Amino acid sequence: MSNPSTAHPALPLDFAAVREAVDTHLADYLDHKARTASDHHMPGEIVDTLRRFVLAGGKRLRPLLCVCGWYAAGGSGDTTTIVEVAASLEMFHAFALIHDDVMDRSATRRGHPTVHQTFTRQLRAGRTRTAAERLGIGAAILTGDLALTWSDELLHTAGLPAERLAALLPLVDAMRAEVMYGQYLDLVSTGDLAGGVDVPLKVIRYKTAKYTCEQPLRIGATLAGAAPRVLDALSAYALPLGEAFQLRDDLLGVFGAPDQTGKSRLDDLREGKHTVLVALALQHADHGQRETLRCLFGNPTLDETGAERIRGVLAATGARTRVEDMIRTRHAQACHALQLTPLPGPATLALRRIADAATVRIS
Amino acid sequence: MSNPSTAHPALPLDFAAVREAVDTHLADYLDHKARTASDHHMPGEIVDTLRRFVLAGGKRLRPLLCVCGWYAAGGSGDTTTIVEVAASLEMFHAFALIHDDVMDRSATRRGHPTVHQTFTRQLRAGRTRTAAERLGIGAAILTGDLALTWSDELLHTAGLPAERLAALLPLVDAMRAEVMYGQYLDLVSTGDLAGGVDVPLKVIRYKTAKYTCEQPLRIGATLAGAAPRVLDALSAYALPLGEAFQLRDDLLGVFGAPDQTGKSRLDDLREGKHTVLVALALQHADHGQRETLRCLFGNPTLDETGAERIRGVLAATGARTRVEDMIRTRHAQACHALQLTPLPGPATLALRRIADAATVRIS
Repeated sequence: MSNPSTAHPALPLDFAAVREAVDTHLADYLDHKARTASDHHMPGEIVDTLRRFVLAGGKRLRPLLCVCGWYAAGGSGDTTTIVEVAASLEMFHAFALIHDDVMDRSATRRGHPTVHQTFTRQLRAGRTRTAAERLGIGAAILTGDLALTWSDELLHTAGLPAERLAALLPLVDAMRAEVMYGQYLDLVSTGDLAGGVDVPLKVIRYKTAKYTCEQPLRIGATLAGAAPRVLDALSAYALPLGEAFQLRDDLLGVFGAPDQTGKSRLDDLREGKHTVLVALALQHADHGQRETLRCLFGNPTLDETGAERIRGVLAATGARTRVEDMIRTRHAQACHALQLTPLPGPATLALRRIADAATVRIS
Repeated sequence: MSNPSTAHPALPLDFAAVREAVDTHLADYLDHKARTASDHHMPGEIVDTLRRFVLAGGKRLRPLLCVCGWYAAGGSGDTTTIVEVAASLEMFHAFALIHDDVMDRSATRRGHPTVHQTFTRQLRAGRTRTAAERLGIGAAILTGDLALTWSDELLHTAGLPAERLAALLPLVDAMRAEVMYGQYLDLVSTGDLAGGVDVPLKVIRYKTAKYTCEQPLRIGATLAGAAPRVLDALSAYALPLGEAFQLRDDLLGVFGAPDQTGKSRLDDLREGKHTVLVALALQHADHGQRETLRCLFGNPTLDETGAERIRGVLAATGARTRVEDMIRTRHAQACHALQLTPLPGPATLALRRIADAATVRIS
C-alpha cells in the first residue's frame, strides 16, 4: 500500500460492515448445508439449531481481529477471502461455545437456551427426562463436532491459493490445540480453590489471550503476507488485550447485568469457576470471608442472597478493585504496543477502538 | 506402473507392516505432543490418555483401506506420505470413538475402560461421584476434540505438496460431515423401534459404508492421482463391503464373544441400539416375541438371562439368518466390483482379503 493511512479508510473502521459480511456468509453457508441435508434425506434439525445459535448474536471479536490483522499487514482490495476466513473463525468459536456449554451444563447463552438445552426440549417426547437430557447432550456434542468440521470447510473453500492455505493451516492447528488445552485446565481447576492466581492466569492466556486475540490477528496478517515485525507487534498488542478482555468477562459474569450480557450472573458462582477474581479474593480474605466463600462458592443451588454475600466478599477483599487495576494495566500495555510499531493508520485506529471496547464493555 | 501385478507385491499384502508403520507414526507424533505439553507446563494427562487409547488396538481398517486405495490407483515408491495420511484417518477415528462412547455412555472399548471412564476415575479424588462423572465426560469431549484437531495436523504435516493437499481436503471434509450425520441419526433413532429397516440402513451407509470404507479408499486413491473409473470401482467395492462390515459388527455386538471383541455383548441391547438385526426381528415377530423385545430391549439394567431371551427372539424370527444372508450378498457384490475393473494385482488381492476378513471375522 503506497499510502497506508488513507488507502482503505472505510472498512477497517466499519465494524458493523465486517460483522454483516461475516454473518451473511455464515447464513448462506448454513442455508446451503440445510438444502444439502434435505436433498440427502438427512435430519435438518442439527443444521437449523446450529444456524440459530451462530446467528443469535455475539461480538464477532475474532472475525473483527482477523480482518484488522489483514489490514495491519497491508491487506487491501477485495475482502471476500478475508471475510470468509474470518467466518471460519466464528464457526470454530461456535464449536467451542457449544462444547463448553455442555461441559459446564450452562442453561443459557446469548440470552437463549444453550444447544444441549434446545435439543433436550426438542427430543423430550416419549422419553424420560434423564434420557432426553442425555440425548440433548449427545446431539450438542455432534452439533459442535459439525461446527468444527465446517469451520475447516469454510477455510478450505475461502478461495485461498493452495500455497497460502498450506501456510495458514499450522497457525489454525496451533490455535485450536491451545484453546483446547486452556479449556481442559479450566475444567479441571473449576471448584479447586487451592491453586492461587497462577492457574486462572494460565487459563486466560491459552483460552482467551492467544485464542481470541493473538491468533485471529496473526491469521489475518499472515494472509496479507505480514513481515515478522508486524506479527510481533500484533502479539504484543493481543496478549495483554486478551487477558484484559477475559478479566472484564469474569467481572461481568459476577457483577454484570444479565439483560446486557445475555448470561446468568449466578452461573459462574454456582459452577465454582476458578477465576483470577476469586483467586485474589481468597488470597486476601480474612477467616470469616474465606468461610463465606468456602460455604457458598461452587454451590449449585446458590440463590441471589448467597450470591450477594459472595459479591460482598469479592469487593471487601479488594479483589474487584485489583482486577480493575489489572485490566487498566493490560489495556495500557496493548495501546503501548500499538505505538511502538507503525501500522497502517486505519488498522491502528481500529485496534485501539477494539481495545477500548473489550475492556470497558458492559456486555 | 509398467507391470502393476508385480511392481510392489510386498506392501499391499503385508497388512501387519502397514499397521506397524501407522502405529509407529501415531506413537511418535503423540510422544512429541507429550513433550511439547510438558515444555509449556500444560497438563500431560490428556495426551497420555489419548495415546493409550489410540495405541490400545483396533483393526486399523481405515488406514489399511487408505493404503490399498493408493496402490489401487497406481501409487508406488516411498510410502511415508501415504502412511502419514492413513495415520491421520486413524486419529480421526479415535475422535469419533471417544465421542461415540460419551454419547452412548459405554463403559468399555477395545477391552479397556472408555476415555470418559478413565478420566472419571482419575479425577475422582475430593469430588462427589456425580461431579467426577461430569468432569470425566468433559475431559473426554476435549480429548476427542484434540484428536480431531490433531488428525488435521497429521494430514497437514504429511509432506503433501500444497496443490495435492488442497485437492484432498474436500474429500476429508465430506467424510467427516457424513459420519457425523450418520451418528446423529443413530443417536436419535436409538430406542425408537417404529422405523423399520430404512433408518438403520441409512445409518450404516453414512456411518460405516461411506466413512469406514469408501472415503479412506478414495482418499488414498486420490493421493495417487486416481482416474475416475478407478474411483468408481473403489466405491462400488466399498459401499456393499462397508454395509456387510457393520452388519457383522451388529451380530457380534449381540452374539459375539466379549473376550474376542473387547466389547460387552450387553451394551447394544441395554442401549436399545436400533440395528438392522433388531428391525428385522420386529418386522417378523409374532405377538409374544414382540412383547419380549418391547419389555427387555433398551432396558439399561438388562441381565444375561434377559439378553439370552432377546437372542432367542433374534434367532427364532429369522432375523439373524437374514442378516447373515445380507452380509453374504454384499460380500459378493464387493468382490464382483473388483472383477469388473482391473486394478493392480496386489491391490485387488489385498481388497479381496479385506472383504473376507471384514465379513467373516469374530472380533
